[in-house]
Amino acid sequence: MPVNRQILLASRPEGWVTEANFKLVESAMPRPGDGQFLVRNRWLSLDPYMRGRMDAKKSYAKHVELGEVMVGGAVGEVIESRHPAFKPGDFVNAAFGWQEYALSDGTGARKVDPSRAPLSYYLGVLGMPGVTAWIGLLDIAQPKAGETVVVSAASGAVGSVVGQLARIKGCRAVGIAGGRAKCDYTVGELGFDACVDYKAGPLGESLAAAAPNGVDVYFENVGGEVLDAVLVSMNPFSRITICGLVSQYNATEAYGVRNLRSILTNRIRVQGFIVSDRMELWPRALDELADWTAAGKIKYRETIAHGLANAPRAFIGMLRGDNLGKQLVALD
Amino acid sequence: MPVNRQILLASRPEGWVTEANFKLVESAMPRPGDGQFLVRNRWLSLDPYMRGRMDAKKSYAKHVELGEVMVGGAVGEVIESRHPAFKPGDFVNAAFGWQEYALSDGTGARKVDPSRAPLSYYLGVLGMPGVTAWIGLLDIAQPKAGETVVVSAASGAVGSVVGQLARIKGCRAVGIAGGRAKCDYTVGELGFDACVDYKAGPLGESLAAAAPNGVDVYFENVGGEVLDAVLVSMNPFSRITICGLVSQYNATEAYGVRNLRSILTNRIRVQGFIVSDRMELWPRALDELADWTAAGKIKYRETIAHGLANAPRAFIGMLRGDNLGKQLVALD
Repeated sequence: MPVNRQILLASRPEGWVTEANFKLVESAMPRPGDGQFLVRNRWLSLDPYMRGRMDAKKSYAKHVELGEVMVGGAVGEVIESRHPAFKPGDFVNAAFGWQEYALSDGTGARKVDPSRAPLSYYLGVLGMPGVTAWIGLLDIAQPKAGETVVVSAASGAVGSVVGQLARIKGCRAVGIAGGRAKCDYTVGELGFDACVDYKAGPLGESLAAAAPNGVDVYFENVGGEVLDAVLVSMNPFSRITICGLVSQYNATEAYGVRNLRSILTNRIRVQGFIVSDRMELWPRALDELADWTAAGKIKYRETIAHGLANAPRAFIGMLRGDNLGKQLVALD
Repeated sequence: MPVNRQILLASRPEGWVTEANFKLVESAMPRPGDGQFLVRNRWLSLDPYMRGRMDAKKSYAKHVELGEVMVGGAVGEVIESRHPAFKPGDFVNAAFGWQEYALSDGTGARKVDPSRAPLSYYLGVLGMPGVTAWIGLLDIAQPKAGETVVVSAASGAVGSVVGQLARIKGCRAVGIAGGRAKCDYTVGELGFDACVDYKAGPLGESLAAAAPNGVDVYFENVGGEVLDAVLVSMNPFSRITICGLVSQYNATEAYGVRNLRSILTNRIRVQGFIVSDRMELWPRALDELADWTAAGKIKYRETIAHGLANAPRAFIGMLRGDNLGKQLVALD
């Protein structure tokens, strides 16, 4: 009898996530009821926001309850359907969770086209991270040609697209990343103008050198000390998109940001945003991202873990910054 | 021979301003050249932003050099003129500085009408602080009827107008102020719905009680711990106008703000602003403020020090929060 392997949230982390916070279980294979379909997951997405869902704190999205399947986007193939809009053989992207099979009633599900791009791309450059970069940079921060755009977590799934979009728009793209390899990747392979290794020395000084005309747009994925350092270099009438604060997600005590006076003296506009607030922009964003990726204007790399059992370790590694580009789990 | 008494910046403060940072001098009475006029100052404005001008740090405006007359808005009477647009007997508002007489070439000078309101009002509710409140609240934060507006330094020149404008727009107005007397004033006299005394206990809890539906707009004059506390109560899609950070101006080490994650989870828009960036809105703002003040919808109080020599002490007192309403120096 076929089983469904699932990863549940076993306990809430205190500070850093550990593998002990997760539990791998086998459960009965689900069967679709009326209006439902069954998906076999092929690719699992691992994203920083999932860390927030493990806490019981109030946030913009409901947290995962103890004993529930870990939340997360996935791309899978429909293998059985009693839903009029989805048929076996369709490939679908939705929040199917950390499991090998999932039931869906179609809520939030998008069909994806495997002839246009590899399936896994729909979890990265052609999925939530890519659209996040597009909306957060082009719709919210609105950089103008000639401006300097800085992005933290620059080699990650979102940051790598932000910098390349900035280049497409005629901006100077400056990354912030941890370690020489990531910086070399963003400059050498992705075409960033510069990248600052925050592990290599005082970030403020390196940033001032990499952004000699100051910073007009800062796309924030990290927060904490990095935000404090960038605030010093912000230009008058600059914009900050707060997309993520990954440095704080596992912190037992939040870092205190000291340089907020720059918001006043430079009349900075700071906007927090969640990509799901602007669903109406997805189709346009996806079209442009697909075109630019196909044309080679957006380059894209993945870090792949294999097998559901390795998802927790890969997730923790991603939060530590071990990955280059989009972190995925292949469920072959 | 008549003399001009002036207060110069004698030294830069380290931390808190002291009277020793200023120096009162007597200098020769200036005479207007071609295109200039001479003003006898009647009212001197004391405002928190002046603290920033005493530092040599880069900011949005040029700092005062050592030995220069302290910067500041004033209202005076033209007593001699070689300027075609200003004649003796005109009353004029401009950055005439901390001195009894000033020369001007008309740059930034506005004539004011003493028949419409008392002269001193043009430094307060009908001047920079009032317009700051109007633009920062109505143009930048844009509260909607029924929303909750919180303002810090609520009994001050800007804050007192912010709360009353919020009431005029149908919002719940909640002040934050230091001490029972100030809170009683904002609620009892200005008509705020509630006021939280930040000296009386944990601000977060008091604020949650005073703003039971959360905070939709926060007008920030103070920063530091107060900002940290308010961030916790912000609603999804709320707005923060950063108008001032007076708690930080004399701090030798800036307070580290820990609750910035609220900007992300609540998708807050934060906007730093300086009133002089939006000069085009002044006439409309002034008209509305004058009408509402004349109609008694905006109430207004002043704290007055007498004589130029008392300006430094009054300025330091204002930074400490000793004043209620607009702090002025009368130069009779």
